[in-house]
Amino acid sequence: MGKGCFIVIEGLEGAGKSTAVATVCDWLQQHGVSELVRVREPGGTPLAEAIRALFKRPPEGERVAPATELLLMYAARRQLLEQVIWPALERGAWVVADRHDWSTLAYQGGGRGLADELILPVRQAALGEFRPDLTLYLDLPADLGLARAQGRGQLDRIEQEALTFFERVRSRYQQLAVDCPQALTIDASQPLASVTTALQQALAGSWPRLQDAVA
Amino acid sequence: MGKGCFIVIEGLEGAGKSTAVATVCDWLQQHGVSELVRVREPGGTPLAEAIRALFKRPPEGERVAPATELLLMYAARRQLLEQVIWPALERGAWVVADRHDWSTLAYQGGGRGLADELILPVRQAALGEFRPDLTLYLDLPADLGLARAQGRGQLDRIEQEALTFFERVRSRYQQLAVDCPQALTIDASQPLASVTTALQQALAGSWPRLQDAVA
Repeated sequence: MGKGCFIVIEGLEGAGKSTAVATVCDWLQQHGVSELVRVREPGGTPLAEAIRALFKRPPEGERVAPATELLLMYAARRQLLEQVIWPALERGAWVVADRHDWSTLAYQGGGRGLADELILPVRQAALGEFRPDLTLYLDLPADLGLARAQGRGQLDRIEQEALTFFERVRSRYQQLAVDCPQALTIDASQPLASVTTALQQALAGSWPRLQDAVA
Repeated sequence: MGKGCFIVIEGLEGAGKSTAVATVCDWLQQHGVSELVRVREPGGTPLAEAIRALFKRPPEGERVAPATELLLMYAARRQLLEQVIWPALERGAWVVADRHDWSTLAYQGGGRGLADELILPVRQAALGEFRPDLTLYLDLPADLGLARAQGRGQLDRIEQEALTFFERVRSRYQQLAVDCPQALTIDASQPLASVTTALQQALAGSWPRLQDAVA
């Protein structure tokens, strides 16, 4: 195996992304993947985590301009790619990410309404042609996700947005999943055991293609 | 006066930018500009200053990928524009900046060698068509600038680059100044009094055009 695969879990707050990452990692290990790297975005390096902190809780409660938010997100993403993800894939590790590029397209694009003409050139500068080998999108109604997230305690700046914001985010996510041949949608409103089974089936179904990708 | 002017001082470390900003502000006040806003880049808002700090001294000495640096610079710039510069110009204030966009083109482009194809789309996303009304470029040999900067004490991550880096930065600055009709080059290797006189003459020469811009 000369090169690893990059698998991304995407979805709204409360969709169950952390649990899904663990499920995916377990499944991959059981199927012979020896080195697994887990990351979350934004963050994953000291600098990217510092950017995440600025983004989530800006100093003195300063308003973060939407375009600033976009540039910060891609700064953190590029740093994580260069410092962690690309070197890991290069040495043959598999990387499992809790959020990646779709989060920006869904939250800053769908949620905040930033135009694609603004987002896509910045994305191109930050990512080039790099894309995940597999994206597992955990879909659920925005109100259900928010209720779950609120059950976890205090909400950050993003989580405090209105329900309609998250409905726009979900709608963009759904469109991205439809448009991407390397993505699968999982119904995350099901009971946890069913979501786990669905993830395992999605991995099993994608396994031959992923094996080809690293062959 | 319905709208202010945006004047930028650019140049290498040790070129005398801070002194030049003071000279320009004094001159403008003497010529009837009532509200002056001084900014420095990167920085100028709590969030942009926090980005500046990350950029100058990254946590745990982490390597900052050149593309990350680029995205952070523009994130800070956009935030300053939205929070400070654009509202000031809108209410008729004049804004004098210690560094602006040319610094990125010169340092990340000329110095680090980032390609224009990478920089220009990010710049477009961050700035749109916004440009200074007047740029005063303080030109001096890189070794003279570095010697002056070193005389000021400990150097940050950027200031520790090699002389050849700053020579590439200077070369890009010179080209930008040649290509821009709203820019003037000042010989900053002269004695301070001569630089001050040259700045005052440059302002006097540009004054009718700047007055027209705000008319």
